[in-house]
Amino acid sequence: MTAEIITIGDEILIGQIVDTNSAFLGKAFNKIGISIYQITSVQDEKAHILKAMREAEDNADIIIITGGLGPTKDDVTKHTICEYFNDSLVENIEVLAHVEYLFSKYITTPISDLNRQQAMVPSKAKVLMNKFGTAPGMWLEKNGKVFVSLPGVPYEMKALITDEVNPALRSKFKFPYIRHKTVLTYGLGESAIAIRIEAWEDALPSFLKLAYLPSLGRVRLRISGKTNDKEQLERVIEEQVQLLLPQIEDIFVGFEDEGLIEVIVGNLLKQREMTLAVAESCTGGLMAKSLTANAGASSYFKGGVVTYATESKVNVLKVSDDDIKTYSVVSQQVAEQMAENVRQLYNADYGISTTGNAGPSKGDSDVEVGTVWIAIATKKGTMSQVFNFGNHRDKVNMKATNKAFEMLQKEILKK
Amino acid sequence: MTAEIITIGDEILIGQIVDTNSAFLGKAFNKIGISIYQITSVQDEKAHILKAMREAEDNADIIIITGGLGPTKDDVTKHTICEYFNDSLVENIEVLAHVEYLFSKYITTPISDLNRQQAMVPSKAKVLMNKFGTAPGMWLEKNGKVFVSLPGVPYEMKALITDEVNPALRSKFKFPYIRHKTVLTYGLGESAIAIRIEAWEDALPSFLKLAYLPSLGRVRLRISGKTNDKEQLERVIEEQVQLLLPQIEDIFVGFEDEGLIEVIVGNLLKQREMTLAVAESCTGGLMAKSLTANAGASSYFKGGVVTYATESKVNVLKVSDDDIKTYSVVSQQVAEQMAENVRQLYNADYGISTTGNAGPSKGDSDVEVGTVWIAIATKKGTMSQVFNFGNHRDKVNMKATNKAFEMLQKEILKK
Repeated sequence: MTAEIITIGDEILIGQIVDTNSAFLGKAFNKIGISIYQITSVQDEKAHILKAMREAEDNADIIIITGGLGPTKDDVTKHTICEYFNDSLVENIEVLAHVEYLFSKYITTPISDLNRQQAMVPSKAKVLMNKFGTAPGMWLEKNGKVFVSLPGVPYEMKALITDEVNPALRSKFKFPYIRHKTVLTYGLGESAIAIRIEAWEDALPSFLKLAYLPSLGRVRLRISGKTNDKEQLERVIEEQVQLLLPQIEDIFVGFEDEGLIEVIVGNLLKQREMTLAVAESCTGGLMAKSLTANAGASSYFKGGVVTYATESKVNVLKVSDDDIKTYSVVSQQVAEQMAENVRQLYNADYGISTTGNAGPSKGDSDVEVGTVWIAIATKKGTMSQVFNFGNHRDKVNMKATNKAFEMLQKEILKK
Repeated sequence: MTAEIITIGDEILIGQIVDTNSAFLGKAFNKIGISIYQITSVQDEKAHILKAMREAEDNADIIIITGGLGPTKDDVTKHTICEYFNDSLVENIEVLAHVEYLFSKYITTPISDLNRQQAMVPSKAKVLMNKFGTAPGMWLEKNGKVFVSLPGVPYEMKALITDEVNPALRSKFKFPYIRHKTVLTYGLGESAIAIRIEAWEDALPSFLKLAYLPSLGRVRLRISGKTNDKEQLERVIEEQVQLLLPQIEDIFVGFEDEGLIEVIVGNLLKQREMTLAVAESCTGGLMAKSLTANAGASSYFKGGVVTYATESKVNVLKVSDDDIKTYSVVSQQVAEQMAENVRQLYNADYGISTTGNAGPSKGDSDVEVGTVWIAIATKKGTMSQVFNFGNHRDKVNMKATNKAFEMLQKEILKK
């Protein structure tokens, strides 16, 4: 049983937005046993949407359509669905009441005709109520295939999938079990890993598939399987992971299920009741933002300082002005003082710092673009390392952030 | 003349990664006059890739294929291209030398057979050298249509498009001129805007298309056009924008070409030679990270403080402990002290602060989830406002960040 995702919107095709909905849908569907056969992004244009729907009906059993449900003239999805199902729009009083309720917070006058149109749905559709917006989801069936149309606004779409679509699909169909297990490694390229684990890879059971996902200094190894026997699949994947781990001990960071490196480090800190503060120069808030993206961060993350200007390293973090002049602002001395001083300032167990030049041009320091010093301060002392992360600004900052968390992880595990 | 993008990789379909390559390609192609007809994401599977290539050849003139070019066994794109073009792989000495050069930085031994395979390319392909990686780009032609295969690693793909593919396409074809102009508004819903500007929208010349892009408290209005007469298109879009602006004066923020609100504000600060520091609680580094994402930020952004723990608001930012106890950590008093104190700490012209509860649960304060106080401190005084940004953590933080920059923009323009 497979699904196809059709995302509708010129803004996707002209690159004005990145389609994040599809990744959410892929994950949410895999979780309940549905494989995504294909993702197709098309224009806000009737003929093109109809063509995509016909092709998707040939390819897949479940067709999820997102986008194009707004009240304005550029949105044509609802009319296109009517044409595809040879249907017409009727007013749904439940949706109308909901639209009126949503607007009652903002206006006292009756809602406009435009907003009233949001309550018009194809007569053959089962309505899926959208608690966060005016455009309802719609569920239609044809020749045993399910079509679901959802709004493109991410949090509206996500709530409809979680609360309405997935429960309905699970009660209508029986799905197999899909499992992905992803091992995070860093420090070795994909080809070197592939050679090292070749015998293991070749001996994998045929119902498991291995994928290499290289990105910025790390390679993720994903083992995927799909069966009807959940216990067997879980067991075999676990056995294979146990065979793999001894072969990659030196480059193993963790499992993706545990989350990103900042989540793994956060959990470690939490377990040990330790706290962290960060001092950022080139990473400019990325370390703090990565940490605070996790709801539980307040138990281990005390806070941080972004000292973007050189003078603020002196004024806010009390880095020695002389050392900056002698060794430059991108130096071991400055990185270590930043880490230790932010640790003390926030009264934390660990302080981590970055100072570097992410480019594109040389800043307050003469060091080569891509050079980053990272320091980790503990109550027992401070250590630091220098890296060159290449010449692409975002890449440099992302790599520096990941590396700092990896260094912190090693430091914590040392104790 | 249209293009279709085929992105290859199971990681896209299972939602392990978000496909950002397509948005880059959409933008880069629109810039030189190529419309994207469709984006199709398919599995790492020969039959599926072949089917997508056949369909794309029917749909479009230029077919861009990304992904699946790694040295490991899960990558099948190169063999699939050979099958499609009835071709076979041959070793390319230029690519081989480049692969050897890339590895010479890391190893002294000869490269492995796996890496050597990266130099095997279809004999009919024109090779596009990939300076950042081992997988070359490949350009093939069939029945007047162009197929380009590129690696999936974003910065490798981007450099190949900019340096190789787009120049080659421009010298081979003559493209029309495409222009998008996007007006940023906030504070009014899309339907209310649509009603207000209905007469203007209906009178738009037929070669212009208007789209409404609503998201988190703001609506973007995009005017798009495609013609062979660049000057005429520029002029007509500009005329229409001038007709539109007086109708949306109260909700107009800027143009998207100028970038995001933080870029607009950054440019304003730069023009006026003013500086900024930020104090973040709930936004946890997002304001700093948004600012420092722009290479020129160092001329106006002094830095910031993330005081995630309540105690750090006292220790680092010298917020009054009594006021926190009396008014709670999410209060006007705390927000204003944070803004003013960070301004002084960093010796900046403006200080902005956020303190709130982004959820999912109530933290150190009893205020409702979604409540955020934002303060702006200047040399002349401090002002603040309270908002409720709803109940979704990311949404709350993103809205708070945008709103803080919008408030700062208004404050700067007041002078």
